[in-house]
Amino acid sequence: MDDDVPLILTLDDSGSSTSAPLDDLDREELPNENGGSYDVINDASSPAAGDCCAQQSSARHNWEMNYQEAAIYLQEGENNDKFFTHPKNAKALAAYLFAHNHLFYLMELSTALLLLLLSLCEAPAVPMLRLGIFVHATLELFALIVVVFELSMKMRWLGFQTFIRHKRTMVKTCVLVVQFIEAIVVLVRQTSHVRITRALRCIFLVDCRYCGAVRRRVLSWLGFLLNLRQIFQSLPPFIDILLLLLFFMVIFAILGFYLFSPNHSDPYFNTLENSLVNLFVLLTTSNFPDVMMPSYARNPWSCVFFIVYLSIELYFIMNLLLAVVFDTFNDIEKRKFKSLLLHKRTAIQHAYRLLITKQRPSGISFKHFEGLLRFYKPRMCARERYLTFKALNQSHTPLISLKDFYNFYEVVGLKWKAKRNREHWFDDLPRTAFLIFKGINILVKSRVFQYTMYTVVAVNGIWILVETFMLQGGNFFSRNVPWSYIVFLTIYGVELLLKTTGLGPVEYLSSGWNLFDFSVTLFAFLGLMALAFNMEPFYFIVVLRPLQLLRLFKLKKRYRNVLDTMFELFPRMASLGLTLLIFYYCFAIVGMEFFAGVVYPNCCNTSTVADSYRWVNHTVGNKTVVEEGYYYLNNFDNILNSFVTLFELTVVNDWYIIMEGVTSQTTHWSRLYFMIFYIVTMVVMTIIVAFILDAFVFRMNYTRKNQDSEEDNGIVLEKEISKEEVVGIIELYKRSSAATETAQLQKIVLQMDKYGQMSTLFLGRRSRTKSDLSMKMYEEEIQEWYEEHSRKEESQTPLQEPASASNSSLKPLSLRQRSQTVI
Amino acid sequence: MDDDVPLILTLDDSGSSTSAPLDDLDREELPNENGGSYDVINDASSPAAGDCCAQQSSARHNWEMNYQEAAIYLQEGENNDKFFTHPKNAKALAAYLFAHNHLFYLMELSTALLLLLLSLCEAPAVPMLRLGIFVHATLELFALIVVVFELSMKMRWLGFQTFIRHKRTMVKTCVLVVQFIEAIVVLVRQTSHVRITRALRCIFLVDCRYCGAVRRRVLSWLGFLLNLRQIFQSLPPFIDILLLLLFFMVIFAILGFYLFSPNHSDPYFNTLENSLVNLFVLLTTSNFPDVMMPSYARNPWSCVFFIVYLSIELYFIMNLLLAVVFDTFNDIEKRKFKSLLLHKRTAIQHAYRLLITKQRPSGISFKHFEGLLRFYKPRMCARERYLTFKALNQSHTPLISLKDFYNFYEVVGLKWKAKRNREHWFDDLPRTAFLIFKGINILVKSRVFQYTMYTVVAVNGIWILVETFMLQGGNFFSRNVPWSYIVFLTIYGVELLLKTTGLGPVEYLSSGWNLFDFSVTLFAFLGLMALAFNMEPFYFIVVLRPLQLLRLFKLKKRYRNVLDTMFELFPRMASLGLTLLIFYYCFAIVGMEFFAGVVYPNCCNTSTVADSYRWVNHTVGNKTVVEEGYYYLNNFDNILNSFVTLFELTVVNDWYIIMEGVTSQTTHWSRLYFMIFYIVTMVVMTIIVAFILDAFVFRMNYTRKNQDSEEDNGIVLEKEISKEEVVGIIELYKRSSAATETAQLQKIVLQMDKYGQMSTLFLGRRSRTKSDLSMKMYEEEIQEWYEEHSRKEESQTPLQEPASASNSSLKPLSLRQRSQTVI
Repeated sequence: MDDDVPLILTLDDSGSSTSAPLDDLDREELPNENGGSYDVINDASSPAAGDCCAQQSSARHNWEMNYQEAAIYLQEGENNDKFFTHPKNAKALAAYLFAHNHLFYLMELSTALLLLLLSLCEAPAVPMLRLGIFVHATLELFALIVVVFELSMKMRWLGFQTFIRHKRTMVKTCVLVVQFIEAIVVLVRQTSHVRITRALRCIFLVDCRYCGAVRRRVLSWLGFLLNLRQIFQSLPPFIDILLLLLFFMVIFAILGFYLFSPNHSDPYFNTLENSLVNLFVLLTTSNFPDVMMPSYARNPWSCVFFIVYLSIELYFIMNLLLAVVFDTFNDIEKRKFKSLLLHKRTAIQHAYRLLITKQRPSGISFKHFEGLLRFYKPRMCARERYLTFKALNQSHTPLISLKDFYNFYEVVGLKWKAKRNREHWFDDLPRTAFLIFKGINILVKSRVFQYTMYTVVAVNGIWILVETFMLQGGNFFSRNVPWSYIVFLTIYGVELLLKTTGLGPVEYLSSGWNLFDFSVTLFAFLGLMALAFNMEPFYFIVVLRPLQLLRLFKLKKRYRNVLDTMFELFPRMASLGLTLLIFYYCFAIVGMEFFAGVVYPNCCNTSTVADSYRWVNHTVGNKTVVEEGYYYLNNFDNILNSFVTLFELTVVNDWYIIMEGVTSQTTHWSRLYFMIFYIVTMVVMTIIVAFILDAFVFRMNYTRKNQDSEEDNGIVLEKEISKEEVVGIIELYKRSSAATETAQLQKIVLQMDKYGQMSTLFLGRRSRTKSDLSMKMYEEEIQEWYEEHSRKEESQTPLQEPASASNSSLKPLSLRQRSQTVI
Repeated sequence: MDDDVPLILTLDDSGSSTSAPLDDLDREELPNENGGSYDVINDASSPAAGDCCAQQSSARHNWEMNYQEAAIYLQEGENNDKFFTHPKNAKALAAYLFAHNHLFYLMELSTALLLLLLSLCEAPAVPMLRLGIFVHATLELFALIVVVFELSMKMRWLGFQTFIRHKRTMVKTCVLVVQFIEAIVVLVRQTSHVRITRALRCIFLVDCRYCGAVRRRVLSWLGFLLNLRQIFQSLPPFIDILLLLLFFMVIFAILGFYLFSPNHSDPYFNTLENSLVNLFVLLTTSNFPDVMMPSYARNPWSCVFFIVYLSIELYFIMNLLLAVVFDTFNDIEKRKFKSLLLHKRTAIQHAYRLLITKQRPSGISFKHFEGLLRFYKPRMCARERYLTFKALNQSHTPLISLKDFYNFYEVVGLKWKAKRNREHWFDDLPRTAFLIFKGINILVKSRVFQYTMYTVVAVNGIWILVETFMLQGGNFFSRNVPWSYIVFLTIYGVELLLKTTGLGPVEYLSSGWNLFDFSVTLFAFLGLMALAFNMEPFYFIVVLRPLQLLRLFKLKKRYRNVLDTMFELFPRMASLGLTLLIFYYCFAIVGMEFFAGVVYPNCCNTSTVADSYRWVNHTVGNKTVVEEGYYYLNNFDNILNSFVTLFELTVVNDWYIIMEGVTSQTTHWSRLYFMIFYIVTMVVMTIIVAFILDAFVFRMNYTRKNQDSEEDNGIVLEKEISKEEVVGIIELYKRSSAATETAQLQKIVLQMDKYGQMSTLFLGRRSRTKSDLSMKMYEEEIQEWYEEHSRKEESQTPLQEPASASNSSLKPLSLRQRSQTVI
């Protein structure tokens, strides 16, 4: 007889299995009062009727299916995948599982990276990496074929219908077809044509699982900029403000043309086009005093024109732009948080429905929870599974209710560790050694020691500063090592040694600041070695000496907080940075296709920026004087150069020299490229500013709200496990013949026996994420969202019940249907 | 017998008058049910006992005193003056009244402006305005003597003790003494010495009543920057982040020096000082690609150094700075709002205590309210006084309770207007004329007309653009007027005429946009006249033609909203701008004292920026080619030039050319001036950004909160007055023989009679201020503040009751005490 039957398994291929589990409905399973020995154990311990073994194993198989599907639901919730891409049958499930593991993701990523990196070797290649056309075209074809394989797996999993409907995948397919044709054309013609479409390669990167955050960010911002979603109607949107900016620019351009073109020594306003371009550049302040000077020399009052223009455009409208972006940013972040939160909640509901039994529809038992975790987090050990279950279970009944299960994502990420009885690593050492190490430990932790070290670092800092100031251009790669360097390094070495022994290596290295100290000292030591043994190629390490000054950071707690916040921001910053890089990549490809090789020394002698591109070698008296403008280095000759050039354009200062240089060698229309790039980077930089602003202001508000609460140490949870509980779980695992789990758990029992404890305290810990902060900040609103969400679901139920039923209950069925044929 | 006696008049010089009014306590005054005939009228209409007329007139005199003092309290509350500067006796009151009227304020302002403007004529003077030393020194002495007079009035009002304790006044006195001595020295020596102290002249401006907003802003920000108040301990303060910035700069300077000084063609890192200065300039991006170029030419990977530096310093820490400033800005604004709100509340409490009577301590009657308004707003007419009273009076009893009185400031600013029965200005005209005007009115208000006009403006815009584009540097001051100009002008003229006649001149000009249209059309017409009649000096008007494009603004409602918000922000923007100007003034004076005349054409041939200061006249073939670097124009030769130079430094681009030019002619230490100026303007600009950000984000939040409420039309209040009420008030005024008030009110009665109405509806209207918005935004918190405030007051009462009693009840007494001798 079945111990319990999935609630959702109401239909089968034969239609008869529905009744079979129903027969068992009257069988009562009373939850045990004893916390350790769960009903699941009882169930397994009563295989009374031998004839129903086949049925039982089929039920077990059904359960396995349910576990897997619930795990898939939870993964979809976590990754914000839409549920309509949920695998619909066993074949799809196989493809889904194939396409959802880290090996596959890595393949995806490396293919995308390979495609992107090909630009290093293609036509305007980096000199050292140049490859023959045949080689790189073959590589490209290979990579594209891998992408085809990935897409076919995806089609197998999604089914043709869903595949067609899935916009992102369709775009990818189209790009793939274009790239394929072009690669073949290149291979046939044995020569590269103008391939701007290479800029689309970054779509493969964006579509990677690992770049999900980037994708979502790009999409939501594109949506905002193009106003695709009509959600921002109440505020003046971005595009409008941009138009306002251009509108004023046109008015001032006409005015400037009328006012200043009679002055023939003024090259900036002699035509309307020049007037417009120069006012656009003036908006970036890049040509500022220069553009004013000819007219200012003629009439001092003409400065009023420029002051008014800058005040309106730069100081007012540009800040207005920042305000709009900042405001929208907050709004988008909140919306994203809300939708993800509700999506997760739905995923949890789906998973819950798959895990409850008919007999006990009020919750999930440990057996089924453990089954879920086996699929959801295969690496989790048995102890952690049980601790997660206990942490979720707030009601102290053997079942997890839906309300408790809603905390799944918050709890499942905790790392569990037994609370140590031993305080120090040397507690088990003999008495004398213990006393010595204890002494070192106290010394290392004392304030005196800390402040002594700060003083040393400060003295070292001043020393380096003075020393460098005295050096003044002498040869500082001299063979003799300065004695001060050795003295300070010795002190740092001793500090490192003391700390390592006093705290134990593990505790020492668990602090980021100690890690930083360690690596700086190591680098300094390597530099010393390089000096001592005359190793020319490692001289660069010597140069890193001033980095030791970074230790001064520790002096002030506030700076450490700033840095800590910086590191906390890092993941989101990285996704922003990646977004920027993708923009760069697109523009670099386009720039290379159009402007590769157009800029060279002395190329632009006819333009107004000739000086910056000059390279003259003339002899004055006896000396050879080189007049070098260097700007010819800012070119689009290969992708690395392009990136540097684009960074210079991002920094904005003197960008018009690069623009004018290129324009003088090509056509007037080239300016469009640079202007569009300016606007795009302005937007992206504004978003970055808004992002940093938001992150810090958010953090400050959070700190202000929680001023009286404890120090910020991440999320910590405490759970106690008694010996009986562990023994109970071991029994359970023994039934299901899981040897490794049993062994792991028995170790805990042994540990307890050794210290004579009846129970062990475990600490679950994870770092605080932005999501946790948001949860706390929007506490009240979240409740409203939940209510609204469930109201919406309820209102949809009478209408969509059949559809949703088929969605959630038919799928597991069809999975199982085919499982007998495929798996 | 007294009709009512001020509650606070409990003591007198003789000590006997206390008992006299107390005798009347048992006299009952029942409020009339009839809304119009207030008890005050009854009081005045029963001068039963003739022998107490003297006593009555003395009581009236006491009341006048109380009215005046209450008005002073309310003024102090409005202006955020501290109460310890409250005039303490009759002499002080006279001085207070003398020093608190617009004539005195104007004198204060004009003296301060005169002193500031003197810099135009002093030593490095603007050529056209140069004055002899004797002349400007005498002018200065004269202005300083006026300031002495102002200060003596202030001393008379404050008393010596308070005068000494009042920091701001003491600073002013010290500056005055220094300026006085220096002016005399100049007059005696007949030559100007180095007078950096002239920079302090702006203190006189800051101390002006009209610059109160500026003063408060400057003080609160100085407090923030110097961390004088320890209120921002929870956030990383500004100075800390600035130090972090400098810290990284030093580390990178040392690193850069080690890395790049071996390259002898790199002039930017050859010494540690150069390295530091160039990285400081790089922080402003002002020398960006140039500073990288020599090392980039040698080794392409050196760009990593610059990219990392800019990413950390410019894109991270500078934004962090913005975040901190933005956050602190919000905090300061909220604190300022809170303190002003509570200050106003206290002022209202003080005033209330002076206006209630012993007989009826539960509120203020109209008679006393009217007396207060006579002093508080002498220009208010009788009708408005009564309407203000009615608007305040929420309880519909004849008395205003303290709770109602708290709304004083919100209500007293309303402008009252009778709601018109006549809809149009032409309603009284004969039938035919009426129909014609009615037709025009309908036409003008129709959508078709509006859109036609938009089309015309758009066509005109494109026309101007195309025309200007075709012109391309021809002589556009030709004598023949282009026909398109006349056509469009005619259309605009007709539009203006139609609108004026259709809406009536008053309604037409009451809209800012129509006013704008009107002036643009007028200007265009003047330009046409100038063209037609060949008036050379007015040609500049022709140039303003493109301003007509500004009409296009009306096309989009959102733009109008942006502009409206801009105008709403204008007063606060102006105070910010003034703050900036004051900073400019200080730096301009210092700059002129040190750098006047150091920069001239070809001055800096030894420096790295020689090209920018070059002025060469050489002959190539037949033509004379002028090579002009123009930067010698950015000098400190007089105050106007200094201002322009400082604006260029504010815009930051290429500021190092100005710095290097001046440095090459003076000493290395000159760089300090420029660097300090950069940091100061950076702070001020960051504050401006934070300000605009705050204003707009605040507004957006406000809009979002009130999305469903009606259009934003300012604050509007409706009150109805019946005929009996007016007649009642007329009676009251007749008793107190106020002829003008009686006449005014009788006009209303006549009006009512004419239209046969029994009552008239009045509309009170004023524009919405930031304070109103804040009131709505902080609604809940305000209640907490009030409770906290009253709790604090209660807790202080048992301790400070005698002191506060003497503060508030002794003062009016002493005022009255002396009034018999002085006034």
